[in-house]
Amino acid sequence: MKRLRQLSIVLAVAGLVVATATSTASTQSTSTGFIKEFGTMWTFDAPPLDYWQATYGFRPDQAWLDHVRLASVRLPGCSSSFVSQYGLVMTNHHCARGCISANSTPDSSYQETGFVARTLEQEKRCNGMYVDQLQSIEDVTARIRQAVTATDPAGQVEQRNAAIQAVRQECQNATGLNCQVVSFYQGGMYGLYRYKRFDDVRLVMAPEGQAAFFGGDPDNFTYPRYDFDLTLLRVYENGQPRATDHYFPFSENGAAEGELVFITGNPGSTGRLLTVAQMEYLRDVVYPAQLAGYERQLEIVRYLSSQSEEARRQYENQIFGIENSKKAVTGYYNGLRDPERMARKRAFEQDFRGRIDRDPQLRRRYGGAWDAIANAQQELASFAPQARWYGFGGSQLLGMAGAIVRGNVSGRARGQILRDQPIDRDVEIMGLTAQLEAAKAELPHDDPFIRAVLGTREPKAVAETLVNGTRLGELSVRQALLDGGATAVARSQDPMIVVARAIAPLAEQVAARAEPLQTTISANAELVGQAIFAAYGKALPPDATFTLRITDGVVKRYAMNGTYAPYKTTLYGLYARSEEFDHQAPWQLAPRWRERMGLVDMTTPINFVSTNDIIGGNSGSPVINKNAEVVGLVFDGNIEMLPNRFLFDDTVSRTVSVHSSGLLEGLRKIYDATRIADELAAARR
Amino acid sequence: MKRLRQLSIVLAVAGLVVATATSTASTQSTSTGFIKEFGTMWTFDAPPLDYWQATYGFRPDQAWLDHVRLASVRLPGCSSSFVSQYGLVMTNHHCARGCISANSTPDSSYQETGFVARTLEQEKRCNGMYVDQLQSIEDVTARIRQAVTATDPAGQVEQRNAAIQAVRQECQNATGLNCQVVSFYQGGMYGLYRYKRFDDVRLVMAPEGQAAFFGGDPDNFTYPRYDFDLTLLRVYENGQPRATDHYFPFSENGAAEGELVFITGNPGSTGRLLTVAQMEYLRDVVYPAQLAGYERQLEIVRYLSSQSEEARRQYENQIFGIENSKKAVTGYYNGLRDPERMARKRAFEQDFRGRIDRDPQLRRRYGGAWDAIANAQQELASFAPQARWYGFGGSQLLGMAGAIVRGNVSGRARGQILRDQPIDRDVEIMGLTAQLEAAKAELPHDDPFIRAVLGTREPKAVAETLVNGTRLGELSVRQALLDGGATAVARSQDPMIVVARAIAPLAEQVAARAEPLQTTISANAELVGQAIFAAYGKALPPDATFTLRITDGVVKRYAMNGTYAPYKTTLYGLYARSEEFDHQAPWQLAPRWRERMGLVDMTTPINFVSTNDIIGGNSGSPVINKNAEVVGLVFDGNIEMLPNRFLFDDTVSRTVSVHSSGLLEGLRKIYDATRIADELAAARR
Repeated sequence: MKRLRQLSIVLAVAGLVVATATSTASTQSTSTGFIKEFGTMWTFDAPPLDYWQATYGFRPDQAWLDHVRLASVRLPGCSSSFVSQYGLVMTNHHCARGCISANSTPDSSYQETGFVARTLEQEKRCNGMYVDQLQSIEDVTARIRQAVTATDPAGQVEQRNAAIQAVRQECQNATGLNCQVVSFYQGGMYGLYRYKRFDDVRLVMAPEGQAAFFGGDPDNFTYPRYDFDLTLLRVYENGQPRATDHYFPFSENGAAEGELVFITGNPGSTGRLLTVAQMEYLRDVVYPAQLAGYERQLEIVRYLSSQSEEARRQYENQIFGIENSKKAVTGYYNGLRDPERMARKRAFEQDFRGRIDRDPQLRRRYGGAWDAIANAQQELASFAPQARWYGFGGSQLLGMAGAIVRGNVSGRARGQILRDQPIDRDVEIMGLTAQLEAAKAELPHDDPFIRAVLGTREPKAVAETLVNGTRLGELSVRQALLDGGATAVARSQDPMIVVARAIAPLAEQVAARAEPLQTTISANAELVGQAIFAAYGKALPPDATFTLRITDGVVKRYAMNGTYAPYKTTLYGLYARSEEFDHQAPWQLAPRWRERMGLVDMTTPINFVSTNDIIGGNSGSPVINKNAEVVGLVFDGNIEMLPNRFLFDDTVSRTVSVHSSGLLEGLRKIYDATRIADELAAARR
Repeated sequence: MKRLRQLSIVLAVAGLVVATATSTASTQSTSTGFIKEFGTMWTFDAPPLDYWQATYGFRPDQAWLDHVRLASVRLPGCSSSFVSQYGLVMTNHHCARGCISANSTPDSSYQETGFVARTLEQEKRCNGMYVDQLQSIEDVTARIRQAVTATDPAGQVEQRNAAIQAVRQECQNATGLNCQVVSFYQGGMYGLYRYKRFDDVRLVMAPEGQAAFFGGDPDNFTYPRYDFDLTLLRVYENGQPRATDHYFPFSENGAAEGELVFITGNPGSTGRLLTVAQMEYLRDVVYPAQLAGYERQLEIVRYLSSQSEEARRQYENQIFGIENSKKAVTGYYNGLRDPERMARKRAFEQDFRGRIDRDPQLRRRYGGAWDAIANAQQELASFAPQARWYGFGGSQLLGMAGAIVRGNVSGRARGQILRDQPIDRDVEIMGLTAQLEAAKAELPHDDPFIRAVLGTREPKAVAETLVNGTRLGELSVRQALLDGGATAVARSQDPMIVVARAIAPLAEQVAARAEPLQTTISANAELVGQAIFAAYGKALPPDATFTLRITDGVVKRYAMNGTYAPYKTTLYGLYARSEEFDHQAPWQLAPRWRERMGLVDMTTPINFVSTNDIIGGNSGSPVINKNAEVVGLVFDGNIEMLPNRFLFDDTVSRTVSVHSSGLLEGLRKIYDATRIADELAAARR
């Protein structure tokens, strides 16, 4: 009793918000309505009605939920929604880039110029593109679970996969729908998702890439923003626009500050169910190494870029790309290093384990999972440097040598080796030197890898000898080695092959040591997932699975850099930011936006922020109000949102969306897309 | 030799940039040109010509330096400059607030409406305002030092003060100028500064407070900004505008990104010469307590503010004010907590002490100063909680009781006690409770203060008893106690007086314990100052002393929140920011700016940033280019600049200035100040 009380004090202190919703979930579940760090990516079969009622005084009925579900549709890798009764689909520019490029001609690049279909006839087919509409969800956990009777992990996996495949096939046969079995809570629950798939999708309107991605990589993941990140598609059936009642009309004015908004869409992946030990491993082992890797890459590419103006142009995008990855990983990493967030996570895990330990049956089944994971992580950490460096990284030539030595090269890997590609020896030497220096710094002096590759020599000397001595840069040499098979490889005296032969067994050993630990971690993570579901029911939203979710939030400014970031930006701000960088890339204006600046109402909102919980995969999601009207179009999160991957917190993290009024103003005044703007306006009823 | 080499490696690693300028300074000085963390607040008698030449390829001659010095003039608490040949002086709005208010009438508040003199005759006298122009600097260190022959600290202070006074008086008599002796390097050097004082100063133009301080307290210390923080004054002599050749004409277009700019002005106070021990004391003892104090205040004021809409309005400014102080101190604090900056400081101190220790004479004179300071700081830290809490804080009533009990109340303190003021008992109880709770949390259980004030009772109960029981809220009671003197105080049974009588001796004891330690610290800080001057000569700029400095820098964007803050903002941005907060305070537009938005060129730059080294006192400083033309008007630093108080770093810290083009556009288009704009344009020659 005392322990319980202490726990709840810890939870209260740690800021775990426990709503007072009445429990209706499984017996193990409690009155928990909302635990902040799990976020708000709710599934449509478990909408948190009591929590919404308590928080916003809003309790949608089933008809509202069904309507919203059917109006929200999925694209490959993205989200979208129907926005007119004639099958018009709204998504982000980058979600339809393939279609935009495929329809461009040598004379007109729609990526450069944008595209507006003036008539239905001008709408252009997007080959390979499809739209999935979620028809229904069924909990098939029991059926999958029953099918698993084996006691060995491999047998279990096989049985489970077979059961999943059977459920899926049966569903497809019975309904003709596109059926998918999705694992939630790391295997704690299985849901059968039935989609109607539309595969006649056409391009209706896309702005210039520069308008959609104004501010480019530097502004990516940040706010204030000014992006017109829109593509409009249309779903056809039998050669005609698909008529539907389930669509979101555009709101008259968009959302005011403080207003409740929902976002529907398909968040791709989060790690909020990870145990503390898993998070610590990411924090202490994985991310620091990844960030150091980016730094090594950047140092090389920046050096190359500094060699000439031409080189600067050549490497500019690569530098931005690496910096962008670094920005994202730095965000995740900082979240895991935030003591407050981690304290909340620890408090939660303590509560969670307490719930499991107090029930003998649950304890027997799940109680050991956390320690099993922690032990495996600890052992993985003990040889993480070896796992990191025993390999063929840092050099293209060494990479190819590694693949050749390991044998069985086929498919894409074979194609890459047999592609005639220019090798820049300077880049190779620089990359390999950096790789070997980093390995030397992290591995013990007498490590077998160091002994085998470096001996007593310096990394730079070794890299020069290898790169200058190898003939693997010649396609014919590579071809001969592949053709000659194991015998040729074993006989080769090429220095790069020789060193790869020395590395290969070390890499194999370390991989063999890691594999069972990884298996232990996945198996026990699945138990934790089952346990969480057993302890809290559906009260906690499962990790993102690229299935349809609905997240609640509020349009809201936030504290930034000593002051506030406003809840919205305006066209004034777009023109300001371009001017303030003297129109330099990536802040130059698309020509149409420059030419027509006199025509637009500068006070029109262009982007805005809200506290909803999104992640990659939500691109193109609609932002809707209580009346299920479009107030915005999600296209990014601010940089403060990156830590939410593992531990959600909405104090300063924000979803960034294009504002509905900005969309309409742009369509009418910049793109003369009267037909489409009228269609959206008519949809308003 | 080895030690020296290691040191220079440490310095190189720690990022101490040592320029290769040829040494021309004293024998102890080295070739050091620029050590980053000391910043760039150069004095006019030691301009770093070699460093400027090496860094920018710019080496101004003496005429340039003299001209710039004479065009830069000092106001009480601020900086300014001549900007026309007719004595027009440019400074910040907040630097002339007194004059703006004093000239307002009940019918027209110039703070609200702004003020433009359409003719010379309309220019309004600023009573009490003066302008000081620096005529010459003389090193009087030897003379001051010679006068100090006593061996006891008190005698030394007296002799030094007398010598300073004599030098000053002699100068005034000889020249008729306003002479000041300024101590640099904490007493390492004494400079005689001779100023020509102009005391007929008139108000020419001031914008509305809302235009000058757009964004208010939230945007204060931040960037991007959009403030028209200008006041124009005019210096008169014999009733006529003072003619001068030494003024800065306005540049045609302002500064481009990457351009070298100088700022002249009078930075008030920095602490870059503090020893590591002094900085650590600030970091570990002073600032955490100060920040906790702000939090206590905020909690109370926020509570009061939440009581009604009227209360919200009443306390709004107070909350902003406290938050602003908290913002500033948080900035200083974070600088001291930055491991990289502190590592550089430590590396510097190691080098510095090495230079002293290697010279037997210097070692004898200065070698012990650092440890003496460190020991005193350590002892101060050992009773810091007592020093912090033994006193009369948290309550106005207790404060008055303390003053009455301590006796000898005169002057302003007496006036405050004898002012009839309403006492809000709720506020008093809240404040005193918070104070006593904080004291209780930090002091040991059996601490004499806790025993005397609380005993076994809870802080809240004690506060209630004291506040509800005292009659000190009545003016007549306070009057009687002051009139009755020590006898009346000793006899009083008023509970607040009783408790103040118990606290007073404790407060005295702790003050008596601290005093010699503080004296030790100042005396040794002076030695450190002499030592730094002995070791590095004038190569390192002295700490800010509210005397004229010139700082070099570059107009430059910086990394902010995942992307870049642009080097300039524009009028587009001003209108954007107002719109983006729905014109809510403090982002509403002054009426004139709203009404005339159609008239201005929105692309005009309004504010911009540069890497120059400034601090409070630099308000109103001109930003000039190599041709000594005005490109801007300093009014703030960004939030990243706050840590520069102790350890300068210009990676992301920036000075924020009004852009010269924005000033001219505003004068012409918003204020119809044609006469003044023409005068500035004519000044361009």
